Amino acid sequence: MIEMPSLVDQCCHGVLRTELGLGTFEARLAEGPPAAGTTSFDTQTGFAVRRWCPPLLGLEPHCAPARYLARRRELGVLEAGRRLLRGSGVTTFLVDTGLPDDLTGPAELAATADADAREIVRLEPLAEQVADTSGTVDAFLANLAESVHGAAANAVAFAAAGHAVAPEPPDAGEVRGAAGRWLAGRRAGDALRDSVLLRHLLWIALASGRPLQLRVGGELPVDFIRTTTGLGTDLVLLHAYPRHREAARLAAVYPHVYVDCGTAFPHTGARAAAVLAETLEQAPFGKALYASGARALPELHLVAARLFQEAVTRVFGGWVAEGAWSVGDAQRVAGMLASGNARRVYGL
Amino acid sequence: MIEMPSLVDQCCHGVLRTELGLGTFEARLAEGPPAAGTTSFDTQTGFAVRRWCPPLLGLEPHCAPARYLARRRELGVLEAGRRLLRGSGVTTFLVDTGLPDDLTGPAELAATADADAREIVRLEPLAEQVADTSGTVDAFLANLAESVHGAAANAVAFAAAGHAVAPEPPDAGEVRGAAGRWLAGRRAGDALRDSVLLRHLLWIALASGRPLQLRVGGELPVDFIRTTTGLGTDLVLLHAYPRHREAARLAAVYPHVYVDCGTAFPHTGARAAAVLAETLEQAPFGKALYASGARALPELHLVAARLFQEAVTRVFGGWVAEGAWSVGDAQRVAGMLASGNARRVYGL
Amino acid sequence: MIEMPSLVDQCCHGVLRTELGLGTFEARLAEGPPAAGTTSFDTQTGFAVRRWCPPLLGLEPHCAPARYLARRRELGVLEAGRRLLRGSGVTTFLVDTGLPDDLTGPAELAATADADAREIVRLEPLAEQVADTSGTVDAFLANLAESVHGAAANAVAFAAAGHAVAPEPPDAGEVRGAAGRWLAGRRAGDALRDSVLLRHLLWIALASGRPLQLRVGGELPVDFIRTTTGLGTDLVLLHAYPRHREAARLAAVYPHVYVDCGTAFPHTGARAAAVLAETLEQAPFGKALYASGARALPELHLVAARLFQEAVTRVFGGWVAEGAWSVGDAQRVAGMLASGNARRVYGL
Repeated sequence: MIEMPSLVDQCCHGVLRTELGLGTFEARLAEGPPAAGTTSFDTQTGFAVRRWCPPLLGLEPHCAPARYLARRRELGVLEAGRRLLRGSGVTTFLVDTGLPDDLTGPAELAATADADAREIVRLEPLAEQVADTSGTVDAFLANLAESVHGAAANAVAFAAAGHAVAPEPPDAGEVRGAAGRWLAGRRAGDALRDSVLLRHLLWIALASGRPLQLRVGGELPVDFIRTTTGLGTDLVLLHAYPRHREAARLAAVYPHVYVDCGTAFPHTGARAAAVLAETLEQAPFGKALYASGARALPELHLVAARLFQEAVTRVFGGWVAEGAWSVGDAQRVAGMLASGNARRVYGL
Repeated sequence: MIEMPSLVDQCCHGVLRTELGLGTFEARLAEGPPAAGTTSFDTQTGFAVRRWCPPLLGLEPHCAPARYLARRRELGVLEAGRRLLRGSGVTTFLVDTGLPDDLTGPAELAATADADAREIVRLEPLAEQVADTSGTVDAFLANLAESVHGAAANAVAFAAAGHAVAPEPPDAGEVRGAAGRWLAGRRAGDALRDSVLLRHLLWIALASGRPLQLRVGGELPVDFIRTTTGLGTDLVLLHAYPRHREAARLAAVYPHVYVDCGTAFPHTGARAAAVLAETLEQAPFGKALYASGARALPELHLVAARLFQEAVTRVFGGWVAEGAWSVGDAQRVAGMLASGNARRVYGL
Repeated sequence: MIEMPSLVDQCCHGVLRTELGLGTFEARLAEGPPAAGTTSFDTQTGFAVRRWCPPLLGLEPHCAPARYLARRRELGVLEAGRRLLRGSGVTTFLVDTGLPDDLTGPAELAATADADAREIVRLEPLAEQVADTSGTVDAFLANLAESVHGAAANAVAFAAAGHAVAPEPPDAGEVRGAAGRWLAGRRAGDALRDSVLLRHLLWIALASGRPLQLRVGGELPVDFIRTTTGLGTDLVLLHAYPRHREAARLAAVYPHVYVDCGTAFPHTGARAAAVLAETLEQAPFGKALYASGARALPELHLVAARLFQEAVTRVFGGWVAEGAWSVGDAQRVAGMLASGNARRVYGL
């Protein structure tokens, strides 16, 4: 029997402060809107929420969505969030604050969850804020560098989109040209999508030495990984599913590459054990870190944590039963994935 | 215990009317010819046929291929087909009639199987027939549009090759140029492979509003999916294995995208449960539809159906036993995959 | 209960002759160096070695690495190697001798293991040796062809890197140009990386008729496979994990394509059964061949063999228990994968 240690969630977001109805809750369960005649409750995510969350609100598992949401509103969003977040077993949340939604920040999340929280700074919105307040290309580029280095003083890591990244840093001329074009055509609030500036941002962040979380979305930046080897900055690949095996392989080959085990679980629900086992085929056990990727709904923080704990228990328990692993090793690796690796990588 | 509802096979083909020997039967089991010293009976397909089919012909499971084929000839191709198709539990077959083989059409398949059948029109052969009877580019293009729209009146869906499709419709000049070149160089009966004309066909079909089945063969038309969002026509991805997880993810993100669960099963045999479970990691339960993809041999229709039923029972039964799903949800989702989703998507 | 036949390891390398400490042993367990704060013993490879090897040296499974290595040195590298290699159940080793490491050759490996061994000739080092001793482009090209054909007389197969191979043979002018540039810029001992010369080598080897082992490293040479169909030379895809399902599919479609089942196992450890089952979804049973890919450490030869045997027993045993396979078929297919297919393909 594996004893589950407390968790560090190395990548999540805050939660909504507003009461939710059936439709507004459903909209947060899935990445896309449901097709006509279907509901996003009919997904692994929906079933996992209905399995794990109702008992924390005093209901039976698998009760109907409408009943769950009625009870949630009855308790109020704060009390429901408190029960769900505190039930997750997470003692430290690393919170990516760069989403456009109006979500609780690290301090508020920590208070609700009775846990610690640290900030992860997302690079794109940082650049957008700098653009909003910089009058010239020179000012923008100087402020950008300063902002990233300033953020590095407090943030525990940086985060950015990491798919289709060209391997080399852009040269100064390219950067100036791209900045000029972007600033000239931009209205306040416009999102950054220019690939030269995104790359420039990544290389500024790399120089800070803080771990850099890359959302890879199924497309792995192999060449970028190759050119950043030996710089001394760690890369953490997030959201690699369904290419989690390829991501794990990169973690095996490159010393500075790490992978998450967890962000897929709220999506894959009952299949968390299978996805965890696949990740651990090649990922060195010191290079895989729990993360929920949860945003907006504290249900997702809870579901990810419970699925992770259950998957570890089932997968490692199976290997111990077969004689493939010793029970001591299983317990030790559980602790590494749950929190030990994150504490080491992020210097917590 | 999941009770298995009757099935709608949303993509299959007819069966051969001729008696088959060991060699002619073996040739229909695999996509390629066997290597020297091997036989296509030594595959998951061959083993699945030997497991499920002999009992319907009064033989022991796993009897030798020669014995099975002798008994099949003894009964005759019609009676063997009747037993196998009626044993499948399929009550509605959607039949893609565009294969060059001489196979039974929907009406004949329906009669043999004592079931309903509807036609799916494959776009490439439709265009080839139009080319055979059109004298000029203008006539060809006009007849093509008319033919597709005419087919839409009776067909339940369209089907086409869907890998490596460029995302945008070709413009009128491109289409005229491609049609001119193709018609000029073409002999009657020649197959359509021109990518501009194929794309043109897809966009005519999209305008009809009928669901469009895309055979993706492991390569997913992500950009085409993106540009067809919001047009009101559903895309059903078929034969995505071994990229079924990526296909399922597209079904989760795009409201108009659906995936099959079944066409891989005759190929992967004993592994159907694993493949089904992977598909259902991300596919919304309202977006996955049973299909056999079976052609020529009624054994393949039977095998796909039995493997699907067994996989659903095993996978869903496991989730219910673990507490991950409620038994009511499991039963409900089984019905959606087996027939409910197909009835809704194809308006049956 | 599946009875395990003796094995042909269709792709491995020799072992080191030197005594190893904790650090030098650890360096051979992984492809990349461990990150700070981690050890390569904390991988599926490390855990599999600690599971299977200590008992052969008179220790408990899962004992600490330091204890294992102390006992290994106490016995001496020769005696430890003898116990491990003889414990593997391999009766014939096909040894790729083209690694730069100083490893035992086929004869020495055979003597240590009390088994047979045959040589596989790696094409790149062969070309490098020819370059070291050829004064002119003409001499180099003539000697290259002669060397490959000479090697074919004794070697049981050729081996080469097989990812990103262009599909067509380069023409004579391209080859002369590439050879001239490579020889002019080259110092003795320099490795061959020119893609034109590598392709030229592949096509010389194809003409020999000997099976050609391609290390595909997760990237499959689909176009090369297409253009080499029907030439009469077999291609064996090695190290395809995590694209083993795609590789298996190619083996199903192309008669001259074979896949390994085994080289992933020392990496994926406790997950060998899952990886084997995935490979056998589409690979025809006459087209999958055991291989360890083991190099330098006899522990890896042992671990691959034990994991293969255990995986076959578990996977096939499961299918027999479910009724999906007959026990006779399971036993027969086990023999095909273990040695029968290799004996046929390599003419042993």
